[in-house]
Amino acid sequence: MRPFNFAAGPAALPVEVLQQAADEMLDWQGTGTSVMEMSHRSREFESIHQTALADLAELLMLPANYRLLFLQGGALAENALVPLNLLGARTAADYVVTGTWSRKSQLEASRYCAAHIAATNETSRLNSPQNRARLGIPAFTDWHLSADPAYVHICTNETVNGVEFFEIPDLGEVPLVADASSHLLSRPLDITQYGVIYGGAQKNIGMAGVTLVIVREDLLDRALPICPSAFEWKTVAAHNSMYNTPPTYAIYIAGLVFKWLKRQGGLAAIEARNIEKAQLLYQTIDASDFYINWVEPAVRSRMNVPFYLADETRNDDFLAGARACGLLHLKGHASVGGMRASIYNAVPLAAVRALVDYMQAFAQRHA
Amino acid sequence: MRPFNFAAGPAALPVEVLQQAADEMLDWQGTGTSVMEMSHRSREFESIHQTALADLAELLMLPANYRLLFLQGGALAENALVPLNLLGARTAADYVVTGTWSRKSQLEASRYCAAHIAATNETSRLNSPQNRARLGIPAFTDWHLSADPAYVHICTNETVNGVEFFEIPDLGEVPLVADASSHLLSRPLDITQYGVIYGGAQKNIGMAGVTLVIVREDLLDRALPICPSAFEWKTVAAHNSMYNTPPTYAIYIAGLVFKWLKRQGGLAAIEARNIEKAQLLYQTIDASDFYINWVEPAVRSRMNVPFYLADETRNDDFLAGARACGLLHLKGHASVGGMRASIYNAVPLAAVRALVDYMQAFAQRHA
Repeated sequence: MRPFNFAAGPAALPVEVLQQAADEMLDWQGTGTSVMEMSHRSREFESIHQTALADLAELLMLPANYRLLFLQGGALAENALVPLNLLGARTAADYVVTGTWSRKSQLEASRYCAAHIAATNETSRLNSPQNRARLGIPAFTDWHLSADPAYVHICTNETVNGVEFFEIPDLGEVPLVADASSHLLSRPLDITQYGVIYGGAQKNIGMAGVTLVIVREDLLDRALPICPSAFEWKTVAAHNSMYNTPPTYAIYIAGLVFKWLKRQGGLAAIEARNIEKAQLLYQTIDASDFYINWVEPAVRSRMNVPFYLADETRNDDFLAGARACGLLHLKGHASVGGMRASIYNAVPLAAVRALVDYMQAFAQRHA
Repeated sequence: MRPFNFAAGPAALPVEVLQQAADEMLDWQGTGTSVMEMSHRSREFESIHQTALADLAELLMLPANYRLLFLQGGALAENALVPLNLLGARTAADYVVTGTWSRKSQLEASRYCAAHIAATNETSRLNSPQNRARLGIPAFTDWHLSADPAYVHICTNETVNGVEFFEIPDLGEVPLVADASSHLLSRPLDITQYGVIYGGAQKNIGMAGVTLVIVREDLLDRALPICPSAFEWKTVAAHNSMYNTPPTYAIYIAGLVFKWLKRQGGLAAIEARNIEKAQLLYQTIDASDFYINWVEPAVRSRMNVPFYLADETRNDDFLAGARACGLLHLKGHASVGGMRASIYNAVPLAAVRALVDYMQAFAQRHA
C-alpha cells in the first residue's frame, strides 16, 4: 500500500492520475510521443490545453467575463505580479493579513505601492502552545480600507496557519484579489465575488510549476509598464497562455486532475468529502487535551489542519511513530512548529481515519 | 518504432529518460511517493535537486565562482529579468541582433533601459528563398559598444534562424550575457567567457517549465528594486532555488537527462555526435539545388537547421510525406516559413539518416 501523504505542497495526487501519466509517458494516445516532447504549438498539445481549460471552466462554473491563465512562478511570484498588473494609475492597495502568506503578499507589494494593512490578526499569532490567543479573521466591519485602493488582497486559505475564509465581504467597485493557492478546487466558489483569484498548482490542481490566474476581463488593462511581458496578464490572455512556452507537462497533469475531479462528481461532491475529513480530524483534536488547535472554529481550514501536542517534548516521537505507520509529512511549518495535516482533495478519507486512529492511540499510550 | 521528432522545443527526450520517469511515477525509489507529490523541502527531493546540480556542474565543468539557478518563465521571462537583475546603477545595455530571439530580447530590455543595438544582421534577413542574402554574425570588429553598458547580450544559438556562435568576443570587464536556450549542453562551453548564460529547459535540458540561469557570483548584486523577489537571482541563489516552490518535477526530469548525458560520455562526446548529425544534414542540403540553407557556413547551427525547398509550392507535399515516414515537426517557424529540423542531443543519428534519405528520395521524385 502507498503511504498517506499529508504534505502541504507539493502534495498528494490521485493515484489514477499518476497511473495514467505513467501509462502515457512514452506514447500519448498513439502519437508515439510523450506529452513532454510535444511542441506547445502542436495540434496534440493544443487539444490537451483546450480540454484542460474547458474542464476547469466547467468545474468552476466560470462566468463568461473571466479568463483562465496558466503562468509560472507560483503564488510568490504573483505577490509582485498582482500589483504590477493591477495598480494602473493608482498608488495604493489594501491588504488583509491573516497569516504567513497574506503577510508575504503585503511585504512584496510594498515594493510597488503603498500596501496598506486594512486589517490584521497578527496580535493573536498562533505560534506556540504558550500563546493561547485564538487565531481568526478580523470582522469585515473592522477592515479600514484606504480612500481609493487599486484592489483589496486577501489570502482565502492560510496554508501555514490553517485559517480559511468561508465568507467574503462585498467591496462594491473595489476588486477583491484572492490568493487561493491551498484551497482552490476544494469546494465551489462564487467567482463573481472576486476580481482575481490565483494559486500555485501544487495543492489541488496538479504538480508544482504552473500558476493558475482567474481574472475578470475588465481588469486586464491596468498593468504597469515595468511588468515583464511574460507575466503581464493581458499579454498572456491575448496569447491564450502561449506568449512564452507554457509548462506543458504541468498543464497536462492539471488536465488529468480536472478529469478526475469531474469523475468524483465535481466541486460540490468533493466539498462534501472534504467537510467529512476535516470534521473527523478537528473532532479528534478537540476531544482530547492532548492535542490543541487554536484557530477559531468558524474559520478553521478544511485543507490545512495545524495542531500542537500539549506536551511538545513528544513531537519527535509523534512524528517517528506516524512515519512508521505510513503517515508522512505531518511536521508543521518551521515558522510555527507543531504538526500540520494537509488533507487536500487527493488525500482520501481512509488517510484521515488512519491519522486519527494513530493520534488516539498515541494519546492513550502517553496519557 | 517511435517516430522521429524534429520539434524545436518542447522537443525529443531520450527514451531512457522517459522510461525511467514512467517506471518511477508512482513510487520513487521505494518511497511509495511520486516525485510530483514530494515536498520540495523533503529529504528525498533535496537529494534529487542536489544530485542534479552536482551532475550539471560536472558536465559544464562549472568554475567555483558561478552559481546554477533553476527559475521559471523561460528565456522570454529572462528577457525582462536580465536587465532587472543586471542594470544596477547603469542605464544602458548593448544587444547584438542575429535573429528572432536576440531581437525579442532587445525589445523587451528597451522597457527597462537604453537597449542599444551594437550590431545586427537584420539587413540580411533570411525570410524567403527570394532573399538570397547570406545570414551571418556581424564581425566582432563591427560591434559598436556604448560607453558604459551594464552588459552585452547575445543569443548564442538562434532557434528560428539557425545561426550559432562558435567564437565569443573578449569584452574585458563588460559582462557577456548569453541566451543559450537552444544549444546549452550540446557541446562544452568555456563558462568563464560569460557573465550570465540562461536558457529554457525544453531543448537539451528537459521539459518545459524550468529555466536554467548560470551566473557569476559577483554579478548577483546588481538587481533593480523593482525586480520581483521570486525572480531576483541573488534571492534565488541565497535560497538555492527554493525561495519559492521550484518546478520540482521539471528539475527531476533535468536530473535524469544529466545522468543520461554522463552515460553518453559528457559534452565532448555528445558534441562529436552532434557534429556528425549536422554535417550529414547540411551536406545533403548543399548537395542539391532542390534544398537551400542560406546561413553562412561558419555559423550554421548544429541544433536548428532551417532549409527551404527551391520550389516552395511543394512544401505541403514534403511535410505530408515526411509525416507518413514518421518524421515529425519539420515545418519552419511561422515567421520565416520553409522547413526546420531541430536535431538536439536526444535526436539520434538514425533520425537524421532517415531524414536525409527521405529528402533525397523526395528530391529525385520531383526533379
